[in-house]
Amino acid sequence: MSNSSKGILVGSISGFPEFLPKDQIAFNRCLDKIKKEFEAFGYSPMDTPAVEKTVTLLSKGNDSEIYGLTRLSAEEGGKKELGLRFDLTVPLARYVAEHYGQLVFPFKRYHIAPVWRGERPQAGRYRQFYQCDIDVISETELSLAYDAELLGIVYRIFTAIGLPNYRIKINNRKILVGLMQEFGVEESCLEAAIRQIDKKEKIDAAAMARGLQEIGVSGSAVEKILSFLDRKGSTAAMLSYLEGFSHTLLLEEGLDELQEVLRLAAAFRVPADVIEVDPTLARGLNYYTGTIYEVKWIDCPELGTICAGGRYQNLAATFTRKLLPGVGISIGVSRLIPKMIEKGLILSETETYARVLVTVQDRNFLSQYITIAEKIRQHGFGAEVYLQDKPLPNQIKYADRKGFEVVVIANGEELRQERLNFKILKQQRQETGTLDLLIKYLKTSV
Amino acid sequence: MSNSSKGILVGSISGFPEFLPKDQIAFNRCLDKIKKEFEAFGYSPMDTPAVEKTVTLLSKGNDSEIYGLTRLSAEEGGKKELGLRFDLTVPLARYVAEHYGQLVFPFKRYHIAPVWRGERPQAGRYRQFYQCDIDVISETELSLAYDAELLGIVYRIFTAIGLPNYRIKINNRKILVGLMQEFGVEESCLEAAIRQIDKKEKIDAAAMARGLQEIGVSGSAVEKILSFLDRKGSTAAMLSYLEGFSHTLLLEEGLDELQEVLRLAAAFRVPADVIEVDPTLARGLNYYTGTIYEVKWIDCPELGTICAGGRYQNLAATFTRKLLPGVGISIGVSRLIPKMIEKGLILSETETYARVLVTVQDRNFLSQYITIAEKIRQHGFGAEVYLQDKPLPNQIKYADRKGFEVVVIANGEELRQERLNFKILKQQRQETGTLDLLIKYLKTSV
Repeated sequence: MSNSSKGILVGSISGFPEFLPKDQIAFNRCLDKIKKEFEAFGYSPMDTPAVEKTVTLLSKGNDSEIYGLTRLSAEEGGKKELGLRFDLTVPLARYVAEHYGQLVFPFKRYHIAPVWRGERPQAGRYRQFYQCDIDVISETELSLAYDAELLGIVYRIFTAIGLPNYRIKINNRKILVGLMQEFGVEESCLEAAIRQIDKKEKIDAAAMARGLQEIGVSGSAVEKILSFLDRKGSTAAMLSYLEGFSHTLLLEEGLDELQEVLRLAAAFRVPADVIEVDPTLARGLNYYTGTIYEVKWIDCPELGTICAGGRYQNLAATFTRKLLPGVGISIGVSRLIPKMIEKGLILSETETYARVLVTVQDRNFLSQYITIAEKIRQHGFGAEVYLQDKPLPNQIKYADRKGFEVVVIANGEELRQERLNFKILKQQRQETGTLDLLIKYLKTSV
Repeated sequence: MSNSSKGILVGSISGFPEFLPKDQIAFNRCLDKIKKEFEAFGYSPMDTPAVEKTVTLLSKGNDSEIYGLTRLSAEEGGKKELGLRFDLTVPLARYVAEHYGQLVFPFKRYHIAPVWRGERPQAGRYRQFYQCDIDVISETELSLAYDAELLGIVYRIFTAIGLPNYRIKINNRKILVGLMQEFGVEESCLEAAIRQIDKKEKIDAAAMARGLQEIGVSGSAVEKILSFLDRKGSTAAMLSYLEGFSHTLLLEEGLDELQEVLRLAAAFRVPADVIEVDPTLARGLNYYTGTIYEVKWIDCPELGTICAGGRYQNLAATFTRKLLPGVGISIGVSRLIPKMIEKGLILSETETYARVLVTVQDRNFLSQYITIAEKIRQHGFGAEVYLQDKPLPNQIKYADRKGFEVVVIANGEELRQERLNFKILKQQRQETGTLDLLIKYLKTSV
């Protein structure tokens, strides 16, 4: 992949994108909004080292994807005992197992951090990207209400960052497995059949049928699966379709759980029209055991899934004998946010958090200009002094290019009289007055 | 090193520390305060990938310290073309050279991010730690006022995070080199002599003299250097000592620069008593060419230098032919903040940003409890609902362990009457009233 789609992502090493300052600020502001929502719901931040033991990573990862570390000076063939994390779930499992006795359960954590994948450069994928994960882990049974809380948080995040026209698809793995049983899929090929169904967006009906037959699914079951996959409808229609079955115990349990999650999602004020029940949703395989989520941005299908997650029975089976059920969701910020910037949905207009630039017209009074900025900062507003020895027009050009909102201009005489000129760049207007006038402006305009 | 000095740093891989949730929040809050100061002075955030080309890293780094990356599945002895950054200066130089045409100069950036060093585990050092860097880069001459601005920012940061009793030592490399010339150190052994002086805190006077003699410094010069290194005094005394020399051009230039930086630091409101002029300060070697800073926390000498930096003539000589002078400073947050937590200077009392826990006394009314939390959040205060199906005492214990400030308690009847009970945990008092009463409390108490 080129890192430079419309200039949002730059950087010369393929797969390792970076931002220019304006886009970096836009990206960071989005992450700040996301964090704020996580924190408002009581989730605490986690920040594990980028490096884990390779034995930890290999408990879930694939050795061709994982970057191992050795010192450059090391003998060739040195054993790689350490590697870079490829996701945030393995570090979470290791952390919870390791610090079990010191954590408060249900343990609610968020983790926004880069992960690394040893992709081949030509494969057109990121080799470093941010994951933005939130999970609740319990040491006893975990209430379904947390599945609904995650929906509430995801809805608030997308509202906060201004994502339009998306759908949160939801299913419960018990429903999917129960349906397979209803359709007459043999226990022995159940897993393979679900793995096949997971490919539904990538292959056509004929290929789906062929694949299911090869797995050993009977002809009548294949037919039922194909007609099931073809089904579209509102949440109400889907629920009533599901209720129409004779109900294996598993299907019934899944349907009950799904309905409880939907009921509580309404309590979390998630509008019904952003949620779409999709019983064909398979997502991953053995890991998820209950609720499954997958979010699509309808206006931007090329992004694929922008957020996904679900409920699992046991977080850390390889690290501890304790059963740790959980539910979590992950937002693909490294693809979503640059795309939103590209589409103009997220503004990328400034490369400074400071709103005011104080220019220096007469260097004999440098201290006074510095004092003006200091006073502005004391009111809680960022203010930079242009400290280079350049003519005023250069200073104003600097303000313009960096995206400052207000430029303060004064010569020695004006400083003495406390009569400052304020150029409000966007509005192309200028005012004159004391510093208090500027502070008042900064307080009232946002 | 053990990662567990008093339990602030934990984690099972030696050299890769991590925090438990309370300390993580304390650490993050400090970083947020630091960022806020950087941003208030107009510095924009930078976030380059952790990975650089090894050829880039080796332009300044040492191959035994740099971690190279290869996929775990790769043939042994695969060429390591990529590696992890060992500092934030090399990525800055590469970034500025690469995106030169798209940056606004003076380019003011901050970068808070981990770096990796391939230390041997037994060496007792971190192999991953955060650096917290700020630099101003110019494509023309860079005003000395930026050297003073950095002092202003560092002072504000230490004030904001509550660091007591520290000193910012300051020097100018031209002074040190000029003094060596005054003392009669030959041009040919000047660099080696300064490198030797840089060891002054680690060796005694006899070893210093021996080292200087071995380098080829004459006996009379050694004597002068030793008496110089022994000199202690106030900033005024040091300046007058320096003014007493016959003044090589270089010494005079360095002294002028130092005095200008001190004068402007006063304009940035840095109290004179946190600054200490120390003409013996050598710091690094060829990289710094003017101002040099080094901050010591007097109450905690074992931490060594907690913050350091200086001015350099050319940031990116290996990446571009453009001359890019700059000035920068770096704060050692990964050692400083845990130590401040350990000493009780930074509170680590809560593992939630949300102030309120809404308990659930009657699960039939789950939606109402969720709505209460939602209303609290709408006022801008974090609020979590305890969603697990546990008795009230367990819920209150959870609130206590996580460090919530207020617990909301109500049964079905109280919900109906909008008569909620608020337990203010720290004050061990309880109030009863409507939600508005709680909001009022949250607004007025901080």
